[in-house]
Amino acid sequence: MQGFIQHCAIQVVSVERGRFVSTVKVGPEHRQQDDFIHAGLIATMADHTAGYAAFTLVPEEYRILTIEFKINFLRPAYGERLICRSRIIKEGAQVMVGESEVYDLRQGEETLVAKAMVTLAPVHQERLKDQKGRP
Amino acid sequence: MQGFIQHCAIQVVSVERGRFVSTVKVGPEHRQQDDFIHAGLIATMADHTAGYAAFTLVPEEYRILTIEFKINFLRPAYGERLICRSRIIKEGAQVMVGESEVYDLRQGEETLVAKAMVTLAPVHQERLKDQKGRP
Amino acid sequence: MQGFIQHCAIQVVSVERGRFVSTVKVGPEHRQQDDFIHAGLIATMADHTAGYAAFTLVPEEYRILTIEFKINFLRPAYGERLICRSRIIKEGAQVMVGESEVYDLRQGEETLVAKAMVTLAPVHQERLKDQKGRP
Amino acid sequence: MQGFIQHCAIQVVSVERGRFVSTVKVGPEHRQQDDFIHAGLIATMADHTAGYAAFTLVPEEYRILTIEFKINFLRPAYGERLICRSRIIKEGAQVMVGESEVYDLRQGEETLVAKAMVTLAPVHQERLKDQKGRP
Repeated sequence: MQGFIQHCAIQVVSVERGRFVSTVKVGPEHRQQDDFIHAGLIATMADHTAGYAAFTLVPEEYRILTIEFKINFLRPAYGERLICRSRIIKEGAQVMVGESEVYDLRQGEETLVAKAMVTLAPVHQERLKDQKGRP
Repeated sequence: MQGFIQHCAIQVVSVERGRFVSTVKVGPEHRQQDDFIHAGLIATMADHTAGYAAFTLVPEEYRILTIEFKINFLRPAYGERLICRSRIIKEGAQVMVGESEVYDLRQGEETLVAKAMVTLAPVHQERLKDQKGRP
Repeated sequence: MQGFIQHCAIQVVSVERGRFVSTVKVGPEHRQQDDFIHAGLIATMADHTAGYAAFTLVPEEYRILTIEFKINFLRPAYGERLICRSRIIKEGAQVMVGESEVYDLRQGEETLVAKAMVTLAPVHQERLKDQKGRP
Repeated sequence: MQGFIQHCAIQVVSVERGRFVSTVKVGPEHRQQDDFIHAGLIATMADHTAGYAAFTLVPEEYRILTIEFKINFLRPAYGERLICRSRIIKEGAQVMVGESEVYDLRQGEETLVAKAMVTLAPVHQERLKDQKGRP
């Protein structure tokens, strides 16, 4: 993990075929003005974790791009740690679909705070390089 | 701006009634392993900027919560700066809907890289405090 | 069931607290030009069934309005019958969230062909009447 | 137009490159129990019209499949006619994105009642036939 994911302090918990779990120890830099955890961090986890769940299903020279995602914020999040669990519900050579559930840990108890559906595309890394040359 | 938005270095550009524009000067902490700008940052901008566009339409003692959003990533983003423009397309006392467009600035030219629809709820700040007491 | 739901021939299978199951016997009027079942019918089932799942959780003088929904079409649907199962994953006085899964029945076997997240609002029927007076 | 689109009485208004407009004269079979126009019909128009807007951009032997869509219902619809305007905001060989706006016609005036983002995939008709053989 590097770049934005490292900057957000999102860490790997576990990896299985088609599944990925990540976590964040929540600090003041993850919150908004009313002390709730920012929806943007929760969305970033949901996207990232679904992408890595998809990555377990493709050859190593492939990258996963997010085509789109939708996320519902079900309850306010304000605990000390977030946990995101993603699984791929549709495999495919051109389009994959993942689901991410984000839980807020409060005094040892997990509360489901957000759920996302993520549409992903596996792309060969050589094709990815092309995309910068031809914007 | 503070907390996660400051941590992401998202800055205000301009505010009008029902409209908000924000920007980020992109650094290495905003990118992913292939040097593209991370979808999570783009989603965070889309959510945050729509929320502030909604905030211009409510009394000061109200907060804006994101009920849900959906974002399509239209083209890879890899430039030096992002600009997000949001506007509210549906006002309402209980539900508002905003649209956010995120542009990637490359050598002075803007490319639309993502578009989001954001469903928002104005909530009185007193009611917000309750939500932590009763999780 | 009446109006559009009757016109689409969507029928109740079962009702539980927070859950609803519906079905359609697929005819030529449900298909598109390549003989697949039309995405619009699938979306209509997903919306309708989630709405009725929410309706089991409110007093009888309330109606359920759909704020928004998102649906992923996971696999082409072409069988003889569709079954839609919805459940409410977030109750609330102002906003509810439901999930709908649509299955295609082919020679007695079910295939998941679509999944939706539906954001719903319970509204008192008196307030609903107002909405026509003040468009 | 045939099958479900004909069954819903959705008609073509106009076609341009990347754009499509459709309409429905609303009858009792399009409404729900409180006399509002059913969200399912509105969603069907949004999906169908975006699909045909995409179809103007591909060779004739291609079909357009809907990968997913998201629709916000902005205001209750109860007029005598619906009009849906779609345009493609992102062309692509594998993924296209369209936007659909649905207007309700009441005494000659149009009101925006719903807005959708639709993710579409152009697929060669030969590949489509395969999909039934290998479910």
